[in-house]
Amino acid sequence: MAERILNFSAGPAVMPIPVLEEVRENLLSLGDSGIGILEHSHRSKAYSAVHAQTQATIREVGSIPDDYHVMFIQGGASLQFAMLAMSLLGSDQTADFINTGSWSKKAIAEAKNCGNVHVASSSEDRNFCYVPTQHEFSANAEFVHFTSNNTIFGTQFAREPDVPDGSTLICDSSSDIFSRPIDVTKYGMVYAGSQKNLGPAGMALVIMRDDVLERCRSENPTMLRYSTYAENDSMYNTPPTFAIYVVGLVCKWILSLGGLESMGARNQAKAAVLYDYLEQSSLFSATADAGSRSNMNVTFVTGDADTDAAFVQQATAAGLDGLKGHRSVGGMRASIYNAFPPEGVETLVSFMRDFEASRA
Amino acid sequence: MAERILNFSAGPAVMPIPVLEEVRENLLSLGDSGIGILEHSHRSKAYSAVHAQTQATIREVGSIPDDYHVMFIQGGASLQFAMLAMSLLGSDQTADFINTGSWSKKAIAEAKNCGNVHVASSSEDRNFCYVPTQHEFSANAEFVHFTSNNTIFGTQFAREPDVPDGSTLICDSSSDIFSRPIDVTKYGMVYAGSQKNLGPAGMALVIMRDDVLERCRSENPTMLRYSTYAENDSMYNTPPTFAIYVVGLVCKWILSLGGLESMGARNQAKAAVLYDYLEQSSLFSATADAGSRSNMNVTFVTGDADTDAAFVQQATAAGLDGLKGHRSVGGMRASIYNAFPPEGVETLVSFMRDFEASRA
Repeated sequence: MAERILNFSAGPAVMPIPVLEEVRENLLSLGDSGIGILEHSHRSKAYSAVHAQTQATIREVGSIPDDYHVMFIQGGASLQFAMLAMSLLGSDQTADFINTGSWSKKAIAEAKNCGNVHVASSSEDRNFCYVPTQHEFSANAEFVHFTSNNTIFGTQFAREPDVPDGSTLICDSSSDIFSRPIDVTKYGMVYAGSQKNLGPAGMALVIMRDDVLERCRSENPTMLRYSTYAENDSMYNTPPTFAIYVVGLVCKWILSLGGLESMGARNQAKAAVLYDYLEQSSLFSATADAGSRSNMNVTFVTGDADTDAAFVQQATAAGLDGLKGHRSVGGMRASIYNAFPPEGVETLVSFMRDFEASRA
Repeated sequence: MAERILNFSAGPAVMPIPVLEEVRENLLSLGDSGIGILEHSHRSKAYSAVHAQTQATIREVGSIPDDYHVMFIQGGASLQFAMLAMSLLGSDQTADFINTGSWSKKAIAEAKNCGNVHVASSSEDRNFCYVPTQHEFSANAEFVHFTSNNTIFGTQFAREPDVPDGSTLICDSSSDIFSRPIDVTKYGMVYAGSQKNLGPAGMALVIMRDDVLERCRSENPTMLRYSTYAENDSMYNTPPTFAIYVVGLVCKWILSLGGLESMGARNQAKAAVLYDYLEQSSLFSATADAGSRSNMNVTFVTGDADTDAAFVQQATAAGLDGLKGHRSVGGMRASIYNAFPPEGVETLVSFMRDFEASRA
């Protein structure tokens, strides 16, 4: 097998090696069942145990209370943008959105097809290089939606925005779910595409409180009603069994490292190595404001497009893959999700130091 | 690794061993990329090649003309029931459906939320044990929908129903796609959940002709518009990369066995072994009418529920797994999709003979 390289991809992204090894061992036979994990009926005893185990492990990792449903829904966060608005926003109702970049804007666009959207705050004035702290919320919003981590712009909310009492807070946590402790009780709904911190692409994890579920409109198509998933344990139709299996293994791996407290500290330390270097570098600088910087996606530039391109090219050649920044920001982006190894960040900083020295 | 057993599951279902072995080899590094197949960005060169290869292989296997789009959409066939109706059926328009069982009924139910449904024919009078040959089509149906193979009731259309000239024929081919030659040009749209003949659960393959795509309503949410997939090569959002990869390998495997002509002959021969035995058995009998019998899902009963249960129990103990029939039909069901080995059918018949002899 080829030697593994450093994968800084923004998603799908690097996964824990022990998880990949366990998957590999179960491809032709899940345990001693004689049937591979891809081949088990979703109604089989073996898969039912996997399904229940993934649910239980997610609940343990996230300390998710009993009055929340844990659902697996195909279509990623992009389908959730529409599904949550179709479910919770009537044509004469208003929802509040915090606009922190591309993903917020897509969520806003889908909601506008259903009802009224009020943008409570936005960081678009400075190309989304920060997360707003001042918001003007509506008096009677059906929900308040925010994107906790912004993959493209390298920003992250340090904590939940302060919302009015009684608000239904909804978070798209696709790129930082389970990367640090989360107090689920502050949310009506948390959702996340699976392909960054959770596992394979092709699914969204949706965590929804009972009372929010009960508010959902019932006239949606069957597959776009949250109740279909809640009432059928996400098995109304054939669920993405493999993705659910792998997400369970990833969550087990999080627990093996000490859970979200440890994971948060580990991610904080990883990001600090990079940001500390960026602070003192004469060549590179972070694009996000201090206080808004993401521990998941570290965006940086040299200020010169040719130098950026040369850096990315040399890094790629040296086995540091996926560092090219999104075109909306330019420069570089190092995505260092949960599974990205701490020593890989050290390798990147060392490479950056050498590059900087070679240009001095 | 545990010895593999015979997996008669109706889906997710048995997969070709060479495919599983190839997946296993690429879990920690796709080829020599140093990044596993689950971990590659959907924008990476390595994954882009996989995506294009799967598309090309599907086109080759199905002899799909250039004026058809090949799309990968999450949510399985169940989401397609709603998505196709939301796209093609206005509130004052009518669509024709052939009702051959549970899946047809679900497709009908979703369409009724959008417009008028006319049931052109139905086999519900005899618990769906046959497929209708006489249909009363509407004069101006937006489309005619049928389910080519009925997993639960063990029936299959031997060929496309005869529809009026100019009809837009739509087929849910979830459980027999690529199991025999298909003339795609007869269809406006063919779709199939991936978890039976194509690969892992979690995706639908959608094949749609240009003019049908152009007729689709544009006011749907982004993720429920076929144009979103057609215009973005199924990469508007992160696609289910792993499922697409595996489907490509399965289609490559189909080609390696000689393509759909060979596959059809192989499946015909496999099913004949079972049906021939059922015809002469004094204990077991097929539940589907001759002429309507499925080559994918062979349903049979003893006529006595206790004997059925004893058979299933003994078969399971002997390593013949997943033979319990769906509760709508009772008895037994042997799902013998493309990847089910011919020798496994011989083993089943041998086991049935012994069981019958032991009861004589």
